[in-house]
Amino acid sequence: MKKLINSAETVLADALRGVAAAHPELTVDHENRLVISNAPREGRVALISGGGSGHEPLHSGFVGAGMLDAACAGEVFTSPTPDQMLAAAQAVNAGAGVLFIVKNYTGDVLNFEMAAELASEEGIASESVIVADDVAVKDSTWTAGRRGVGTTVLVEKIAGAAAAEGKSLAEVAAVAQRVADSGRSMGVALTSCTVPAVGHPSFDLPDDEMEMGVGIHGEPGRTRVPFAPARDIARELVDAITSDLDFSDAPVVALLTGLGGTPLIELYVIYADIADALAERGITVARSLVGDYVTSLDMAGCSLTLLRADEELLRLWDAPVNTSALRWGY
Amino acid sequence: MKKLINSAETVLADALRGVAAAHPELTVDHENRLVISNAPREGRVALISGGGSGHEPLHSGFVGAGMLDAACAGEVFTSPTPDQMLAAAQAVNAGAGVLFIVKNYTGDVLNFEMAAELASEEGIASESVIVADDVAVKDSTWTAGRRGVGTTVLVEKIAGAAAAEGKSLAEVAAVAQRVADSGRSMGVALTSCTVPAVGHPSFDLPDDEMEMGVGIHGEPGRTRVPFAPARDIARELVDAITSDLDFSDAPVVALLTGLGGTPLIELYVIYADIADALAERGITVARSLVGDYVTSLDMAGCSLTLLRADEELLRLWDAPVNTSALRWGY
Repeated sequence: MKKLINSAETVLADALRGVAAAHPELTVDHENRLVISNAPREGRVALISGGGSGHEPLHSGFVGAGMLDAACAGEVFTSPTPDQMLAAAQAVNAGAGVLFIVKNYTGDVLNFEMAAELASEEGIASESVIVADDVAVKDSTWTAGRRGVGTTVLVEKIAGAAAAEGKSLAEVAAVAQRVADSGRSMGVALTSCTVPAVGHPSFDLPDDEMEMGVGIHGEPGRTRVPFAPARDIARELVDAITSDLDFSDAPVVALLTGLGGTPLIELYVIYADIADALAERGITVARSLVGDYVTSLDMAGCSLTLLRADEELLRLWDAPVNTSALRWGY
Repeated sequence: MKKLINSAETVLADALRGVAAAHPELTVDHENRLVISNAPREGRVALISGGGSGHEPLHSGFVGAGMLDAACAGEVFTSPTPDQMLAAAQAVNAGAGVLFIVKNYTGDVLNFEMAAELASEEGIASESVIVADDVAVKDSTWTAGRRGVGTTVLVEKIAGAAAAEGKSLAEVAAVAQRVADSGRSMGVALTSCTVPAVGHPSFDLPDDEMEMGVGIHGEPGRTRVPFAPARDIARELVDAITSDLDFSDAPVVALLTGLGGTPLIELYVIYADIADALAERGITVARSLVGDYVTSLDMAGCSLTLLRADEELLRLWDAPVNTSALRWGY
């Protein structure tokens, strides 16, 4: 295993030191493993997300004005604890309550539930939205129901804009839920990832095969199939997503994320084929993002997310955001 | 070779289709393989860069208001032609002349020289700045003198801000030259990259070794050494750069780029150690960027760039920029 790390045990602590060094506009609470925005909150609803590390820039890269107020970092591929989430709520609650944005993995869901109870005992109102957008499989290694992947970024952005407008906790939660309900994703792995503490690839994938519908922790997908040209992969991802939800009569936000080991030139190659496949199906992409947004350590591959949007969601999407991984209007 | 491509022959054309699909704010000239900003130029000096593909987001990701007006894309690791560069100059010259920003590789330098002559014959004034910032080796596989790497991004950003202010061609070129003269870089490879048209890794690198001072096309570095913890690599990169130029008495811009196959979590881990090494040497980081900015296809590793700045360069660095890979103030 060759990684730019000091030891498997210190990856998260070291990465958080790096975030702190690179981003003076953020506060890193090293004890609680929180990344907190320094932007003023002024009585607005505060947004908190988090999850296992190894998916950067998710979530710490989305902390800042117009998006998350805090991110809770678990160890690599391990849920953060309720205590961390409570500490985050205490740090960022500005009197209007907090929204927890949760990817649908059993540990995350249970711990955020417990955090909501603990917060309630401290007088902090909260709502939660669970993102379960991965159409690949119904249940998975660490998930009852669908896994949560790329739609999480869209929930964080759009709900963040709603919070910035001063909407109430119920209103922000409703917008977040609407985004979560309207996003669908599927990914493909060309290689496994290697968890530092394990030291060898999480799964075996022969040189001539790929894993369609892989999870962002290397969970099995739908099928293991022969490796194929980008246009075939694009078509399969688009078919899987658009057969699950109708995207043809609404403006669509498309997010294509690399999984960590795939360079940008390849993402643009397959995005061209994705755009063609969408156009063939009469689907109009209103906004798009291509790059590394939800990764899986060093896994090669990509994941496509489509959001069935409307004018209101697009307006919130376009609102100013000032984070390290997503920035416009600032 | 597993890549998200359709064929080795169509990688560049397909990637440019993807750029066009993802970025309606850019114009892609597919025939000339140019990416051109749609932002108004209004009589300002126009900035043009380019080079072999495989280093994305360099250069197309830096096209937009406040940075490049056009990028010329060569085939993977192959210089663009003088005709492409001339077409770019014709497309973006707004009467104030063009600045060519050239990484120091022999093909790029010769072709940009010829383009400047061709442009002159067409009545387009131009200046050129050559970036040769890689301290690793004196001459290299495709380079007489030092190779050009990460400082190129800083030249494009800072000269772009000078052009946006309406400075003259001579003034913009002088600022660009000052940045080129004040930046130093060095990289490290943990793995080789694989050029699509070749189909196998460009060089062999054993599992327990790394290439210190690697070039962004896989050119040999200074030394092949046993693989080491991030803090040792950080110290070696910082030592190599700071022993070449004194950074201790000026504000520094630090750019840590991944090389394409290394995920963000690892970049933050080593950036923490880089920040420590800089602090130990009394060097003050005024601005920093951590992410994928100058890549080498799917190579795992990173490259550090330090710029010896001053108040004027920092002011131009902070000026608004609106590109897909670097955006603030918009």
